[in-house]
Amino acid sequence: MKKQCYILLSLFFLSANVCSAQTNEQQLRKIFDEALTNGESYENLRVLCKKVGARLSGSVAADQAIYWGEDVMEGIELDSIWLQEVMVPRWERGNIEKATTNKGEELSITALGGSIGTPTGGITGEIIEVKSFEELNRLGANKIKGKIVFYNRPMEPKHISTFSAYGGCVNQRGSGASEAAKLGAIGVIVRSMNLKIDDFPHTGGLRYQDGIKKIPGVAISTLDANRLASELQLGEKIKVTIDLNCQQLKDVKSFNVIGEIRGSVNPEKIITVGGHLDSWDIGEGAHDDGAGVVQSMEVLRIFKAIGYKPQNTIRAVLFMNEENGNRGGEKYAQEAKNKNEEHIAALESDRGGFSPRGFSVDGAGFNKIKSWIPMLKPYGVYEVLPGFAGVDIGPLKKEQKNIALIGLVPDSQRYFDYHHSADDVFENVNKRELELGGATLAALIYLIDNNGL
Amino acid sequence: MKKQCYILLSLFFLSANVCSAQTNEQQLRKIFDEALTNGESYENLRVLCKKVGARLSGSVAADQAIYWGEDVMEGIELDSIWLQEVMVPRWERGNIEKATTNKGEELSITALGGSIGTPTGGITGEIIEVKSFEELNRLGANKIKGKIVFYNRPMEPKHISTFSAYGGCVNQRGSGASEAAKLGAIGVIVRSMNLKIDDFPHTGGLRYQDGIKKIPGVAISTLDANRLASELQLGEKIKVTIDLNCQQLKDVKSFNVIGEIRGSVNPEKIITVGGHLDSWDIGEGAHDDGAGVVQSMEVLRIFKAIGYKPQNTIRAVLFMNEENGNRGGEKYAQEAKNKNEEHIAALESDRGGFSPRGFSVDGAGFNKIKSWIPMLKPYGVYEVLPGFAGVDIGPLKKEQKNIALIGLVPDSQRYFDYHHSADDVFENVNKRELELGGATLAALIYLIDNNGL
Repeated sequence: MKKQCYILLSLFFLSANVCSAQTNEQQLRKIFDEALTNGESYENLRVLCKKVGARLSGSVAADQAIYWGEDVMEGIELDSIWLQEVMVPRWERGNIEKATTNKGEELSITALGGSIGTPTGGITGEIIEVKSFEELNRLGANKIKGKIVFYNRPMEPKHISTFSAYGGCVNQRGSGASEAAKLGAIGVIVRSMNLKIDDFPHTGGLRYQDGIKKIPGVAISTLDANRLASELQLGEKIKVTIDLNCQQLKDVKSFNVIGEIRGSVNPEKIITVGGHLDSWDIGEGAHDDGAGVVQSMEVLRIFKAIGYKPQNTIRAVLFMNEENGNRGGEKYAQEAKNKNEEHIAALESDRGGFSPRGFSVDGAGFNKIKSWIPMLKPYGVYEVLPGFAGVDIGPLKKEQKNIALIGLVPDSQRYFDYHHSADDVFENVNKRELELGGATLAALIYLIDNNGL
Repeated sequence: MKKQCYILLSLFFLSANVCSAQTNEQQLRKIFDEALTNGESYENLRVLCKKVGARLSGSVAADQAIYWGEDVMEGIELDSIWLQEVMVPRWERGNIEKATTNKGEELSITALGGSIGTPTGGITGEIIEVKSFEELNRLGANKIKGKIVFYNRPMEPKHISTFSAYGGCVNQRGSGASEAAKLGAIGVIVRSMNLKIDDFPHTGGLRYQDGIKKIPGVAISTLDANRLASELQLGEKIKVTIDLNCQQLKDVKSFNVIGEIRGSVNPEKIITVGGHLDSWDIGEGAHDDGAGVVQSMEVLRIFKAIGYKPQNTIRAVLFMNEENGNRGGEKYAQEAKNKNEEHIAALESDRGGFSPRGFSVDGAGFNKIKSWIPMLKPYGVYEVLPGFAGVDIGPLKKEQKNIALIGLVPDSQRYFDYHHSADDVFENVNKRELELGGATLAALIYLIDNNGL
């Protein structure tokens, strides 16, 4: 009798295991089917891009985006939706933005985010080109004083991941102004972080070092950067007048938008998925990061649509102020700590709405996630790498024990064609690529929720 | 002494192995570096698209494309370049192409390639919508006679590979006219093979069955297909007048363009890489198949540029007439047989210039190619699947013993947005994605050449 019981029990566990394996694969299929046939992320993105548009922290459009986010969440009928207050910096581009050389050429430029403006009438100085801070410092104050430094190190095309190429250049934009100011420069022009040669200048955050004189900074299109470099190579001295009236205003109140489906078994355990609601103030923030925002809400919509009741609480967070401060990300992590919340995983989509290829994992869960790849491969998701997961979810790392921070990694080839430029518009997002990304987030969250990390 | 010899020999082979492994990986790195930094495929594609443009077999533009192809090959300084004569069909769209409903709506249509024209003034008939040949045959001659059949089965979005979705629909375009004619229909309108909802009609080959009355066929944009279906669902009877003056002319002389680097060790063994030079007569044939054409020539350019001297003969073939006859592919295989040529592998790129993801292999070599995937994964190439390799290289299968037929498989999500439509233009090709595809072909050919299959 005992033996029979044992056999029966074994059979039971065996069938339970088989059943669970089937369920995982069946649920993944349901998730992708739902995303690809009834997906709402693309239409949501259209409304965000075309009705709200660019939405820099502290702007009227950012407020409208908050309203829009709440509204979309209400349509999904979540268990709770709330706004999390956060004070954000407010920078305004103004209406003057012009760079003209002494030869009368108007350069295709845009102010870097956070830059100070110029005095009325602009600043005028000779352009001096450098490719690195080493070269800058070699030239020294003698050569730099009173000049406008032109940082022209291009993105390295050999990198297969364009994010590596970005990483190799972005210090020119972030720190270039202060580095040049230390040597007496009066302004900086930075080559756009763009692998494509075109006429769009790409903005992005410029951060001034404390105690160093602030000088204005602009991005120049890759086409005009190449033209300028060619002219300089001929030995010409070129002067440029840069006129900007951007300014930093005082901080204003804003919000993260949060919605959740309460866990049916462990409501106190939270899995968060998010993107950032703010964008730079040119273009429409379609890939950066409208895509991540609509995909995060789509995860919850898919679960409701296929009738999946998660064991843990699944939360979508539309973070405010990733682009110039990360105040939303910091606030979310702080509040989670204050409320003693337990986050088991946080996922972020902030690398564009392109075909998903894998995940980058920081913290716990790497091996478990890797073990699920065979189930995701039929959907084109084949790789898990250790690495940086996302700016907004980053602050959770120090506040949450054993949290898995996970970044969605889509195909990166086109991302920097659009990133922070006027060309980051809805039309450059492919519906199916966007939907596959959302489904991939939902699939991984389902696997974590159903199988543990 | 013997023992020492043995140890030394072992060490020698060990180091030779290690060395060869390094060389493989180093060569792949060189190939990708060359493609991404000095690549010429994108500029070549620009010229083909913008200076030659659409190039249907037998057209003046197709002749210009042959000249262009030869010219590009001459720039690479190959060992031999030649034209392979082939007679090709010649179909002309004409200058009348119009479909107007009895409500005065003009439908966004384009004649299917190979369609007969209509009598002057067009044909007029009631539209009857079907989703399949089964539904058509269930309706029978009673309901179909004198009507214009509207095939409206959409591509299935659940398929992750859009080629599977295409495969599930394309019989409407290829065989729909003859199937409808058997029941007395006077014309057909076919929903474009496009997963996107937009206003571009997508052409493509219509093939009449022998002995069945030929009736005209047009493709309709997905937007107008949906609109028409909605109107029909309201129970309206809609008549349409279709006016076309396309015609099939007699066959004309054309050419495959072929260039090769002669093998340094086994010149009699050939590895072929190709795409098709002809395109449909709308758009610019950028993804289909300008991409494959420029990538194939790029393989040879890369080998010359990095100083790689292949052991076997590497041949780039720009096939003529893939779209409406495959006469170029047939001719190439026939000539290879006539000359007793030995092809060890043939690769084709004809799925667009998107980020490469893997290969589909038909015939020999599957396991060997699969074993190389770890070396290709850093470049985003992760999958080898058994399956159809390519139309142009297909005829080699029956003429060449043990040949590996290999299709480059790029990300498929956007391909059918453009395929056979006026939107298949240069601007919709990303430089890096195109270059990665060419480098992937070069990498695999290098591995085959250097390691055998």
